[in-house]
Amino acid sequence: MATSNTTATATATTSRSHPLLNLKPDEIRRASRIISHIVHEKHGATCPIRFKSISLHEPPKALLLPYLDAESAGTLAGSRPFVPRLVEVIYSIGDGRDFFESVVSLDTDTEVEVVKAPKGQHSPMDRGDPREMATIALEDPLVIEAVKKLHLPEDAVIQCDTWPYGSDKFSDVDTPKYSQLYLYARAPHNHPDSNQYAFPLPISPVFDRFQNKIVRMDMLASGGAEDGLKYGTAPAEKPMVHCVENEYLPELLKKPVRKDLRPLHVVQPEGASFTVADENLVQWQKWRFRVGFNYREGMTIHDVRYDGRRVFYRLSLSEMTVPYGDPRAPYHRKQAFDLGDAGAGSCSNNLALGCDCLGVIKYFSAYLNDTSGEPVEAPNVICLHEQDAGIGWKHTNHRTGVAAITRGRTLVVQNIITVGNYEYIFAWHFQQNGNVEFETRATGIVSTALIDQGKRSPWGNVVSPGVLAQNHQHLFCLRIDPMLDGVSNTLIQEDSIPVPETDEENLFGNAWRVVRTPFEKSTFADAAPEKNRVFKIVNENKLNNISGNPVGFKLAPLPSQMLLAGKNSVVRKRARFAEHHMWVTRYRDGDLWAGGKWTNQSLSETDGVLDYAARNEDVRDQDIVVWHSFGMTHNPRVEDFPVMPVEIITVSLKPADFFEFNPALDVPPSTQAFNKSTLVEEKTMPEIDGSSSCCANPTSKL
Amino acid sequence: MATSNTTATATATTSRSHPLLNLKPDEIRRASRIISHIVHEKHGATCPIRFKSISLHEPPKALLLPYLDAESAGTLAGSRPFVPRLVEVIYSIGDGRDFFESVVSLDTDTEVEVVKAPKGQHSPMDRGDPREMATIALEDPLVIEAVKKLHLPEDAVIQCDTWPYGSDKFSDVDTPKYSQLYLYARAPHNHPDSNQYAFPLPISPVFDRFQNKIVRMDMLASGGAEDGLKYGTAPAEKPMVHCVENEYLPELLKKPVRKDLRPLHVVQPEGASFTVADENLVQWQKWRFRVGFNYREGMTIHDVRYDGRRVFYRLSLSEMTVPYGDPRAPYHRKQAFDLGDAGAGSCSNNLALGCDCLGVIKYFSAYLNDTSGEPVEAPNVICLHEQDAGIGWKHTNHRTGVAAITRGRTLVVQNIITVGNYEYIFAWHFQQNGNVEFETRATGIVSTALIDQGKRSPWGNVVSPGVLAQNHQHLFCLRIDPMLDGVSNTLIQEDSIPVPETDEENLFGNAWRVVRTPFEKSTFADAAPEKNRVFKIVNENKLNNISGNPVGFKLAPLPSQMLLAGKNSVVRKRARFAEHHMWVTRYRDGDLWAGGKWTNQSLSETDGVLDYAARNEDVRDQDIVVWHSFGMTHNPRVEDFPVMPVEIITVSLKPADFFEFNPALDVPPSTQAFNKSTLVEEKTMPEIDGSSSCCANPTSKL
Repeated sequence: MATSNTTATATATTSRSHPLLNLKPDEIRRASRIISHIVHEKHGATCPIRFKSISLHEPPKALLLPYLDAESAGTLAGSRPFVPRLVEVIYSIGDGRDFFESVVSLDTDTEVEVVKAPKGQHSPMDRGDPREMATIALEDPLVIEAVKKLHLPEDAVIQCDTWPYGSDKFSDVDTPKYSQLYLYARAPHNHPDSNQYAFPLPISPVFDRFQNKIVRMDMLASGGAEDGLKYGTAPAEKPMVHCVENEYLPELLKKPVRKDLRPLHVVQPEGASFTVADENLVQWQKWRFRVGFNYREGMTIHDVRYDGRRVFYRLSLSEMTVPYGDPRAPYHRKQAFDLGDAGAGSCSNNLALGCDCLGVIKYFSAYLNDTSGEPVEAPNVICLHEQDAGIGWKHTNHRTGVAAITRGRTLVVQNIITVGNYEYIFAWHFQQNGNVEFETRATGIVSTALIDQGKRSPWGNVVSPGVLAQNHQHLFCLRIDPMLDGVSNTLIQEDSIPVPETDEENLFGNAWRVVRTPFEKSTFADAAPEKNRVFKIVNENKLNNISGNPVGFKLAPLPSQMLLAGKNSVVRKRARFAEHHMWVTRYRDGDLWAGGKWTNQSLSETDGVLDYAARNEDVRDQDIVVWHSFGMTHNPRVEDFPVMPVEIITVSLKPADFFEFNPALDVPPSTQAFNKSTLVEEKTMPEIDGSSSCCANPTSKL
Repeated sequence: MATSNTTATATATTSRSHPLLNLKPDEIRRASRIISHIVHEKHGATCPIRFKSISLHEPPKALLLPYLDAESAGTLAGSRPFVPRLVEVIYSIGDGRDFFESVVSLDTDTEVEVVKAPKGQHSPMDRGDPREMATIALEDPLVIEAVKKLHLPEDAVIQCDTWPYGSDKFSDVDTPKYSQLYLYARAPHNHPDSNQYAFPLPISPVFDRFQNKIVRMDMLASGGAEDGLKYGTAPAEKPMVHCVENEYLPELLKKPVRKDLRPLHVVQPEGASFTVADENLVQWQKWRFRVGFNYREGMTIHDVRYDGRRVFYRLSLSEMTVPYGDPRAPYHRKQAFDLGDAGAGSCSNNLALGCDCLGVIKYFSAYLNDTSGEPVEAPNVICLHEQDAGIGWKHTNHRTGVAAITRGRTLVVQNIITVGNYEYIFAWHFQQNGNVEFETRATGIVSTALIDQGKRSPWGNVVSPGVLAQNHQHLFCLRIDPMLDGVSNTLIQEDSIPVPETDEENLFGNAWRVVRTPFEKSTFADAAPEKNRVFKIVNENKLNNISGNPVGFKLAPLPSQMLLAGKNSVVRKRARFAEHHMWVTRYRDGDLWAGGKWTNQSLSETDGVLDYAARNEDVRDQDIVVWHSFGMTHNPRVEDFPVMPVEIITVSLKPADFFEFNPALDVPPSTQAFNKSTLVEEKTMPEIDGSSSCCANPTSKL
């Protein structure tokens, strides 16, 4: 507040940092102080303020893109256009009922925009919420009394997962901010890392965050198929006596880990092939992009260019929802929005060398904030490394026996989040052949509920004695903001359709046509693998010199089962983005949230991708955004417990007539001199001359 | 013939080799001599014999399985049941019109079964056919004259791809065995490995293999969309003047290969974690199986057991078909069956150390035969190695910050085939978490046709000047012969179906049910990703102790677009296996061929999976075989030329209540001491104590 406008501008033209750099600790502090000053001026010096999140407010595209283009053209930082440095602050005051989204300018040290969230919207959980609520809850006499009635072993330690409450009625506009607490016992030996999910308690307190206390105790159903839709009642005398310890931590396993796995090292004797400059600018194999990070989306990718050509303005996971299929209250409300409710950035793991990746690793750290507005380091939240991708392309000339072969290499940008019981491993993969892929690995521990001894349930699978793993879905929405050789792009749906056999041009019945339908207005679309449906993002103003088609990238949408919840259900209304596989919308600054800005306890998806699309805007040859919803219906297997093997889903964006030949054509040949493999029989091999392809053996067919 | 029965039996009980070992050179020779003897006795000593293939005739399951069970139980080889050693010989006599499938016993040195192929069936191409036919064709005056009229540069070298002729009428039962020859010119500089596919000639000779001569010259259409269905006529004066060199071999590229890719080595300092005993018995991480190889299927996997439990009796790629979508004759007949027409084994690459894989590699060689019946070594046709599979599972206890993490390891069994222009990289992946996956990578060079300058076509994409890459499909059929804890298994279709919102048990609309439908009779089924449809192979006689469900493995079928050719087309009739994603049949010895035994120039799929299924046999709790058809519609991109980046498809078989917990639970933790990764900033890192998990860092969310 002491800094005058003049000084700020002067700083701007001399040593301004890149507009896509994450916030620095002092920037976080400056933003929170500005907000504190305003709140205290308005509501008095004692008004409590809780800083939920303090993050970079990305500049408007109209200002940022010219800056990025200038940067790409080689213009020095000082001569690029001015781009404001803005911070988004989400904070609540008083008992938390009133919360605000504010934009603060660090150029003027002023709040330039503030919106008070309307009634019926609830702020996300912040990084302090789970522990604060759990501590209060576990000391609450109501909880202590209810636990006592379960007759657990004396040394049982109760632990508490603080779930978003969800919603079940459209009319509850003025509800308090609730949390549904699921309780678990730690196994008898009482190791702090013992797997609580093997001992799910049949009682669930409801926490009111405004009053900061337990307001209700929900009884959880523990019946099976034979009990129909029987809701929870007072638990039986010793309801959990049939539960048994079921551990995942190596130290706690009953049998030692297997001994016959030998080490496999990835050794890069000359170092990595990528470079990282200016904190977050990555360059690798003709790709160049910036890596961002924020509390909500976690990792974001910006300004993706290939050999100087514009490809994507921004890539991000926009939202995900995890609804459960158990209809017995309160389970019907179990529906997490892991980005909107909790924040992928806030839940990011501190990645450790040699654990999460092999080879030569670069880690990126960032700063988040605590609830008092102070910066908190989030160390090693993103890692960057290369992976061998197997054979990239190969052809053997069967006449001469000469083989040409390259191995593919993938650049992996990875972020791992822990949201209570579950883990998600998110990674952007950049490839030499022009593909950009988003890989999700779901792992961690399935959310569990108690089930009576000997019973089975239609709503899930018994994965350990007394432990029901309920059926659920994971539905993600990827946001793709393209700029293929410019911002004016078009989305085309492309189907492969047989020519009718009666058609005179199909005399022998073997023909099909590729039917292309460009989207004119913002809307949704669905996957259709039976039609080989692909969606192409193209630039109709730029034709490929070889094929004459507009330059483009294609996306074959994953034909995942979409939201199973009924059309009239609140579960469905809250996550309309998960009704269709594809969406195309007209770009607007801030249209980032497929499930709406405020998802916590939301009654419906407000200002989400459905609303963006409903504007019915022109999207042909315009600045567009393409969204892909995908996921999985997870009816758990016994094998998913006590910790779940990764379930992998990958979305691919592939160049389609973007280049004039295979962009991986100039990848050096795969040779023994380069790769240094060994025969199994002998540990060391004489070096083979690697100057020519080592694969010049005749194939067996001649 | 000299050996008496007594001697053979004596050998059998003393030092008989394992019944799943590939044929030895002397066994190939013995089999061909037995056949020669019989043919010469019957047809005279000068009757020409052409040995098409000599391969192991796998023993009947009723004899082999007890042997394998005895082996698994630790019974020494000499005490296991007797299993006959049989050889399948396919041979033709005279001009090749008459051909036979014979089974020879090496125990008695007699032919025990012989079938003369019925009229209308044609034998596959053998390893001698392509070169022999091309040599004759390129010296044929008709061809020389036709090429002369194209006015190619003086030094142009003509090359010839010998395609299976295919079929277009149902009535052509008594046709000669034809080959459709597609001709290409080698580029001006005339390097032997120059890419011929950039210069496709507009003429195509038809070769009669019985007469061994060209019998017709087909003119190829070279028009575009504006020419409609105009068939080929006499080519224009200089029809290929607009074609340009377009090379893939590194030495021939105009620009040097990229220089900024640094080496990445996979180093296994203690060697591989697998062992190979008795030639083809692989043991790795509780998995144990035998690797087979034959001229037709290439790699096969037998007797797959996990920790002593029976899992799969046999896994194989059964067939594939590649129909093209260009309706202009003769392109409408372009439809390869790469296994049945040419043979994946016959076309297998000789894999080279350090080119096709990284790390510690074991190669398997085998013996095929030449047309005179002599053994020919097929070196290094299969390779075996381990790959890092990324994170296998992870969970962080957010209360303590302690992370447990393992990396996955995959055992890869790989076979690569070159079928003329195309390459397929096939690999079975075995994983620690119980998954078995079949990965296909399609690469190589797309098949091309000439297109006039400046034109574009609805039947393909222009990928180089004058070069049309025609639209085509790759449709594979995987054969899965399960024995989950026994041979009596059942296939169950499992859909996730919303409970109606009107249903009283679905008060809030969030519920779905898993609807299971076991198959009672042999039949087909289709993928339905919108229902989250999975198929489970289960053993209804063995229930999982935890869940109470029958032990099983699940397959989520790839929902690929199936055959596009019309219902009345010959293309469709020949490949009925590619009409549906799933088939379940009752096991019978010899039911191996989804597209029928004889696919070359077939008029319809005869004795293929459609016929196996049509027997309408009981398949519930029986010895069953499950088949999965999948693939891709490939409408080529410019990026697919001059050599195509790998297009990857993976089919996964995953345990589903087969185990009582995550089978990868006891994989040792991923630690820096084991993995030895490095930070990008510094090349060497001080060693970290790896005795406990190195990931015990608090996550940023607490």
